[in-house]
Amino acid sequence: MKDVINNATQSKNKNLGRLLISCVDRPGIVSCVSNFLFEKGANIVTSDQHTTDPQEGQFFMRIVFHLPDLKNKLDDLNQDFLHIARDYDMQFEMYLAEVKKKVAIFVSKEDHCLRELLWQSNTLDMDVKLVISNHNDSKELVESYNIPFYYFPVTKDTKDEIESKQLGILKENDIDLIILARYMQILTPNFISHHPDRIINIHHSFLPAFIGANPYQSAYERGVKIIGATAHYVTNDLDEGPIIEQDVERVYHSDHAKELKRIGSHIERIVLARAVSWHLDDKILTFNNKTIVFR
Amino acid sequence: MKDVINNATQSKNKNLGRLLISCVDRPGIVSCVSNFLFEKGANIVTSDQHTTDPQEGQFFMRIVFHLPDLKNKLDDLNQDFLHIARDYDMQFEMYLAEVKKKVAIFVSKEDHCLRELLWQSNTLDMDVKLVISNHNDSKELVESYNIPFYYFPVTKDTKDEIESKQLGILKENDIDLIILARYMQILTPNFISHHPDRIINIHHSFLPAFIGANPYQSAYERGVKIIGATAHYVTNDLDEGPIIEQDVERVYHSDHAKELKRIGSHIERIVLARAVSWHLDDKILTFNNKTIVFR
Amino acid sequence: MKDVINNATQSKNKNLGRLLISCVDRPGIVSCVSNFLFEKGANIVTSDQHTTDPQEGQFFMRIVFHLPDLKNKLDDLNQDFLHIARDYDMQFEMYLAEVKKKVAIFVSKEDHCLRELLWQSNTLDMDVKLVISNHNDSKELVESYNIPFYYFPVTKDTKDEIESKQLGILKENDIDLIILARYMQILTPNFISHHPDRIINIHHSFLPAFIGANPYQSAYERGVKIIGATAHYVTNDLDEGPIIEQDVERVYHSDHAKELKRIGSHIERIVLARAVSWHLDDKILTFNNKTIVFR
Amino acid sequence: MKDVINNATQSKNKNLGRLLISCVDRPGIVSCVSNFLFEKGANIVTSDQHTTDPQEGQFFMRIVFHLPDLKNKLDDLNQDFLHIARDYDMQFEMYLAEVKKKVAIFVSKEDHCLRELLWQSNTLDMDVKLVISNHNDSKELVESYNIPFYYFPVTKDTKDEIESKQLGILKENDIDLIILARYMQILTPNFISHHPDRIINIHHSFLPAFIGANPYQSAYERGVKIIGATAHYVTNDLDEGPIIEQDVERVYHSDHAKELKRIGSHIERIVLARAVSWHLDDKILTFNNKTIVFR
Repeated sequence: MKDVINNATQSKNKNLGRLLISCVDRPGIVSCVSNFLFEKGANIVTSDQHTTDPQEGQFFMRIVFHLPDLKNKLDDLNQDFLHIARDYDMQFEMYLAEVKKKVAIFVSKEDHCLRELLWQSNTLDMDVKLVISNHNDSKELVESYNIPFYYFPVTKDTKDEIESKQLGILKENDIDLIILARYMQILTPNFISHHPDRIINIHHSFLPAFIGANPYQSAYERGVKIIGATAHYVTNDLDEGPIIEQDVERVYHSDHAKELKRIGSHIERIVLARAVSWHLDDKILTFNNKTIVFR
Repeated sequence: MKDVINNATQSKNKNLGRLLISCVDRPGIVSCVSNFLFEKGANIVTSDQHTTDPQEGQFFMRIVFHLPDLKNKLDDLNQDFLHIARDYDMQFEMYLAEVKKKVAIFVSKEDHCLRELLWQSNTLDMDVKLVISNHNDSKELVESYNIPFYYFPVTKDTKDEIESKQLGILKENDIDLIILARYMQILTPNFISHHPDRIINIHHSFLPAFIGANPYQSAYERGVKIIGATAHYVTNDLDEGPIIEQDVERVYHSDHAKELKRIGSHIERIVLARAVSWHLDDKILTFNNKTIVFR
Repeated sequence: MKDVINNATQSKNKNLGRLLISCVDRPGIVSCVSNFLFEKGANIVTSDQHTTDPQEGQFFMRIVFHLPDLKNKLDDLNQDFLHIARDYDMQFEMYLAEVKKKVAIFVSKEDHCLRELLWQSNTLDMDVKLVISNHNDSKELVESYNIPFYYFPVTKDTKDEIESKQLGILKENDIDLIILARYMQILTPNFISHHPDRIINIHHSFLPAFIGANPYQSAYERGVKIIGATAHYVTNDLDEGPIIEQDVERVYHSDHAKELKRIGSHIERIVLARAVSWHLDDKILTFNNKTIVFR
Repeated sequence: MKDVINNATQSKNKNLGRLLISCVDRPGIVSCVSNFLFEKGANIVTSDQHTTDPQEGQFFMRIVFHLPDLKNKLDDLNQDFLHIARDYDMQFEMYLAEVKKKVAIFVSKEDHCLRELLWQSNTLDMDVKLVISNHNDSKELVESYNIPFYYFPVTKDTKDEIESKQLGILKENDIDLIILARYMQILTPNFISHHPDRIINIHHSFLPAFIGANPYQSAYERGVKIIGATAHYVTNDLDEGPIIEQDVERVYHSDHAKELKRIGSHIERIVLARAVSWHLDDKILTFNNKTIVFR
């Protein structure tokens, strides 16, 4: 069953490439890039662009294109595009859509986000290579999906040592994306620096409200009428990284902190799954600690 | 036209009383209160109650009852209820629904919330007695509704003097509720102490995020994906009073600060109007800097 | 683990009773009922009421009360309440909150709603006794929860025979609630008549729009900008029963029918789980093909 | 004040052109169009595109470009683009953003949508030339904005005659867009045929639910838990035209039909204003009775 779906996804994405561009705005970019693709025989399937306000004047583009036998041509395409990138002082990335990203999920005790990701793994375009946890609770669940589970209890003293082991495993498995699915450990700057814009965290509040621990308790005490969840890329500033997605749900005076937590858990998993799906589809660019999400 | 509607509202509310109760929870309260009303010949139309979590154990109730000729009986009813209130150590308030609350609206330059309130004044059950502003911009608008407009330009030096004049006008007009409809002056503790839980402010962010000035600019800079507005009672702690209502709207990376402001202005007026309508219908109780809203 | 949680739920609900009442409105009902409970030594924990518009004048009430040793007193309480019920011509039901309702889930091929219910079975206050399906796909999943799975392939010719077998199993297991978690068979009037207001269905559209089969395809073809899901009690009129809960999600011109189905599947499971949780907490009354939901 | 804002809008839009394209998809379109603009000296500010599913394979694009002195160059640009349009069998439209569209608003008795449009006329990029009504109620309001008000009471017998007068007035005023802001008359096919995709109606329900008259009453009777409003282009099939925008609000069992109407009126005006603003910004294309909205 799973193979059938994977094949379906692959065939849907077959020969599709995704090109992400960021540079200072100036005339001719779209024309130049679309000419390049046309001359290579590619058909533009989708194209989105965004320019920040005139003062900043930063240009962003995402193009999905179709090119027969792209798999074998991607390296050359990449190479040839370097000229354009140099001319326009562009940063760019080019992806083969049919190659699924390799994902590692980090989790602590609360497993609702992990479950959601595993559950949606048929429709999310990813290859979950492994799960890492500082608790043993999710071992059985993870292994029932035939996914390796690594148990790393972390203490203050062992943190550095364990992170370096984790980095080793991530490297070995050639991991493209790390998902913190309610992982209650703070990562060190060293760890983060190995995966810039490649670690997605779900924070259980509507950021920037209720940064830090126990946001549902804080939300209850403040008496808010709406609670939320926020998916963001992890940076060295706790809960301050670029926001990818947020969503909210209405609560009532009769909802105690426990109830907020239960309601919030549904928002968390939906918001995280959305953010992850956009990352997997190369729909997100970051700039000035903000995200551009081409939907 | 307006008279017809007012008459309709009055007839809808004719002989309806509203009883709000707050006390420590214990058995027999509902029974005792409902007996009291039954013996007085009243029919309970609506009854809502809420008890905070067992540790606090605070009980709240709102009862709407119908009693023929209530207008002439309210004082006696109030008097007689004092016995029960004493027995249960209750705080209570009793209102005649057909008496509209007298309202003063404070506004600065942005008039969208003021406009919404004036516009909805046919359906909101209130009597707008006057508008006070530190700018002259809304004079014409307000006077077109035959409502007195007071212009009080405030400076640091004149603040106390002006507030005392304003307090005089509010007292003279027997004002029940003050609405800060984007009034950009901070009220002094003295002013606030005259109107506890009787001043509603609209803050143009999803509190507790973006307290203080320029929340839309801050929201833009933080890159949030959803913006909001918050209506709350005013206390001495700026933007920290009990939240009455909040609502939100989705925004995109292409929405600049100006656009956030425009989108937000629609949320602000809806949220403020909702909070005001609940206050006018005596649906709100406060406790521990939170609101209980019986809807 | 599960036992611990169940114990927690049971202890939370220990000695709590729920009383649901429906009758023609008249003075004295609240007083009479609350006196009854007070005299029996019960403390009213929550009380909600609703009266339909004056023409209809139908009164509804839900009371949650606490009474020590309720388990052993419920039958007597029920018996004694009959007098009041007779006086006011009331319909009423009295439930012991600590007794979980026995649930049967019906499912066809799509298992997202089934999964959600099984997953939430720790927080939903129910005892899933069995799962019935006209396909074999979910057998493994269901049995991994140690829940019996019954496979009944239905054909036109065998429908009556199979339904009568199913009715037997439901009776044997003393089932209180049947959940159609994307069960793609139409139940006969005979089957439905055995479980009035005891069968909850999830329909994958925002009813009354897109009644019947393939609502996502129809929604796509109509070009709607928002899709939804609806949980309702099942009656003989297909998709016409009393609506319990609905929710929606925004979609875009770029979302094809397949994408609508995927987005919709998330709404379906949340909406169904909410409706089920309200039913389990005895929060729903029905009248004139509508629901009153005391939240 | 208004002039200042208009000037601001005009300066914001100065030298901006908008190009809308629709054709059968094939390689090279983006490249060809962007080259054309680049060679003319234009800088692409925004570009959005959409292709319907492979079976249909219809391509849509909206480009906003900046070109100095565009005002004087637009006719030539249009002329020159005809070659490309012919080659690709395109339908296209080119607009000068600084030219406000001329708008006529039709209204009956309920004036909340009219008020909203007049109120937002500072931020909506339009020039309201006139208001037409079959009732006299809004005359004063409209004229307070210095906008001509035409009163045309319509009867069955005079409908054709009056429509032909109205068509005359619309032609005289060179009207680009007709907004039916709760206009309770059905327009004839003849009238509609003069303004294809140029008449926006607000329907007070979440279409396709509750087509026709009295949708709030119908929604109340069906017991829905969410109500909505729909803005759509008018076609000969009543309430069946391409949907531009929809939004919804939650309602409760305690909300009677009157309350639904009040809540709905807020959704109606927001939804209509949004749809109108997108039309004014040339963000909407139609195809197969659906809209593509580039946001």
